[in-house]
Amino acid sequence: MIRIFVTGGTFDKEYNELSGTLFFKDTHLPEMLRLGRSRVEVSIGTLMMVDSLDMTDADRALIVDACREAGEPRIVITHGTDTMVQTAGALAAVFPSGSGKTIVLTGAMVPYAFGSSDGLFNLGSALSFVQVLAPGVYLAMNGRAFEWNQVTKNRHTGVFESL
Amino acid sequence: MIRIFVTGGTFDKEYNELSGTLFFKDTHLPEMLRLGRSRVEVSIGTLMMVDSLDMTDADRALIVDACREAGEPRIVITHGTDTMVQTAGALAAVFPSGSGKTIVLTGAMVPYAFGSSDGLFNLGSALSFVQVLAPGVYLAMNGRAFEWNQVTKNRHTGVFESL
Amino acid sequence: MIRIFVTGGTFDKEYNELSGTLFFKDTHLPEMLRLGRSRVEVSIGTLMMVDSLDMTDADRALIVDACREAGEPRIVITHGTDTMVQTAGALAAVFPSGSGKTIVLTGAMVPYAFGSSDGLFNLGSALSFVQVLAPGVYLAMNGRAFEWNQVTKNRHTGVFESL
Amino acid sequence: MIRIFVTGGTFDKEYNELSGTLFFKDTHLPEMLRLGRSRVEVSIGTLMMVDSLDMTDADRALIVDACREAGEPRIVITHGTDTMVQTAGALAAVFPSGSGKTIVLTGAMVPYAFGSSDGLFNLGSALSFVQVLAPGVYLAMNGRAFEWNQVTKNRHTGVFESL
Repeated sequence: MIRIFVTGGTFDKEYNELSGTLFFKDTHLPEMLRLGRSRVEVSIGTLMMVDSLDMTDADRALIVDACREAGEPRIVITHGTDTMVQTAGALAAVFPSGSGKTIVLTGAMVPYAFGSSDGLFNLGSALSFVQVLAPGVYLAMNGRAFEWNQVTKNRHTGVFESL
Repeated sequence: MIRIFVTGGTFDKEYNELSGTLFFKDTHLPEMLRLGRSRVEVSIGTLMMVDSLDMTDADRALIVDACREAGEPRIVITHGTDTMVQTAGALAAVFPSGSGKTIVLTGAMVPYAFGSSDGLFNLGSALSFVQVLAPGVYLAMNGRAFEWNQVTKNRHTGVFESL
Repeated sequence: MIRIFVTGGTFDKEYNELSGTLFFKDTHLPEMLRLGRSRVEVSIGTLMMVDSLDMTDADRALIVDACREAGEPRIVITHGTDTMVQTAGALAAVFPSGSGKTIVLTGAMVPYAFGSSDGLFNLGSALSFVQVLAPGVYLAMNGRAFEWNQVTKNRHTGVFESL
Repeated sequence: MIRIFVTGGTFDKEYNELSGTLFFKDTHLPEMLRLGRSRVEVSIGTLMMVDSLDMTDADRALIVDACREAGEPRIVITHGTDTMVQTAGALAAVFPSGSGKTIVLTGAMVPYAFGSSDGLFNLGSALSFVQVLAPGVYLAMNGRAFEWNQVTKNRHTGVFESL
């Protein structure tokens, strides 16, 4: 059984056709897992629905707490890409490699609802990495898994790169 | 560097709007990797474009040969789902766990070109599993990785299940 | 109020992921009208779900009868493209220009369910033409309206052309 | 030959994956006409690429001028929905019913690039209405054609309604 925590991010942004703006409603995770015909046993919980640029220290503390209280040793967190590395750092401070928990953060560059999204690819990737990687905190983006302190997001290209 | 061999399967079926039938043209792999913003270094080769129900022993021998000649220790093979297990068996006979090669077969239940496909999810999954699994032959379907001799496709549900 | 009769055709073909073949289930018309935010008052009836190459004289008689019994003076018929002209001819024999009925047949080259379909464009077109054209029998394809006896489908290009 | 003028609007909004915001790049009109297999002869010109809430009197004067200079008697204008009625009024002041020009404005509630758009339906509708309606200025939305002074957009539902 894998625990999935939803925190918002581009992954789950939608288009409000009355206001013409982007907003958060419900997570698309269950629909995405159905589309991927996933048969991995998961339990999904939504912690918050925020743009990761708006994520506060209190939000990060809440994510850490949720991971601590989760009985499952394997956890996927969907997260905005802009501060994903920062949240991974907050998690790594509490869950060192020896903690027994494998935590994988993932996200998307384009909202799932917008057709040309990388979300389904990233979800397949994160859900696979979390099943086989040793305990630790990782980012799964661009088809790769990065240890939390070995990665940075290149703001000019939108690509996650090894340090 | 990961080697990807394309053999056809539902993954790459398209709709011929003049005849109203399904057919194979070119593989969608490069487009799918672009959509997934994949930065995994890959080298793609198309071995054949066939429905896996039409795959012959000669086709399987060709796939085995291609894997033998590939210098890369990590290989993904896109394949129709109906005889994926059979091809995995042919590969396992030649590449035992001690062979040093990690080979992951994957496919799709719905063509990538048809919108509601599981293909992108499966590709993200296969590409992730192949980077971390120990040498051996595996199937990546439904978000899970199965050892080649521990899995069967349930024809009534379309789901891959552990033996 | 506009009457819409569904007869099948490429419009409504779906992909059966267990058999890997195309088949008919339910019509996508209501979903398409919802996607198009259509507020045209319509009443939808499914007469049959067949590939128009398999349509028989009895099927055509049934379509003619349904149009005769319909109280609405404006009718859209979704139909396979291969014999759309033939069915239009059968209708025109019964509903001459003086009959008071405006009947517009339309269809699609690619199934609506397959993402890259012309179906939504054609439906918007047919529903618009039927509201303003004088009584008679027409085909709405390729953004144009053709009188039933002034059109042929070019089998090599898939395009409807004026005679 | 039908003239199509592009002015922006939701129709052509795209998602900037680096900034996470909506923006305008190029019009999707040619791609949409290709998807719809349209064979209507058209000539497309982009006048501006703006959100219709940002459209100025100068912008509207430019649209009126473009229609005046266009040799074609039949014109489609893609436009944001929020001030479409206002631009239609500016056009009607210059092109009365007796002017010989049939002008149809259309738009979309959801960007074409976002998958679940009404854009293709509306384009099929506008392109059809413009071919058959008498000279005058109209809006084509929700599958219906409205005379410019007989319609209002309901801001709460996003639906265009008859006055």
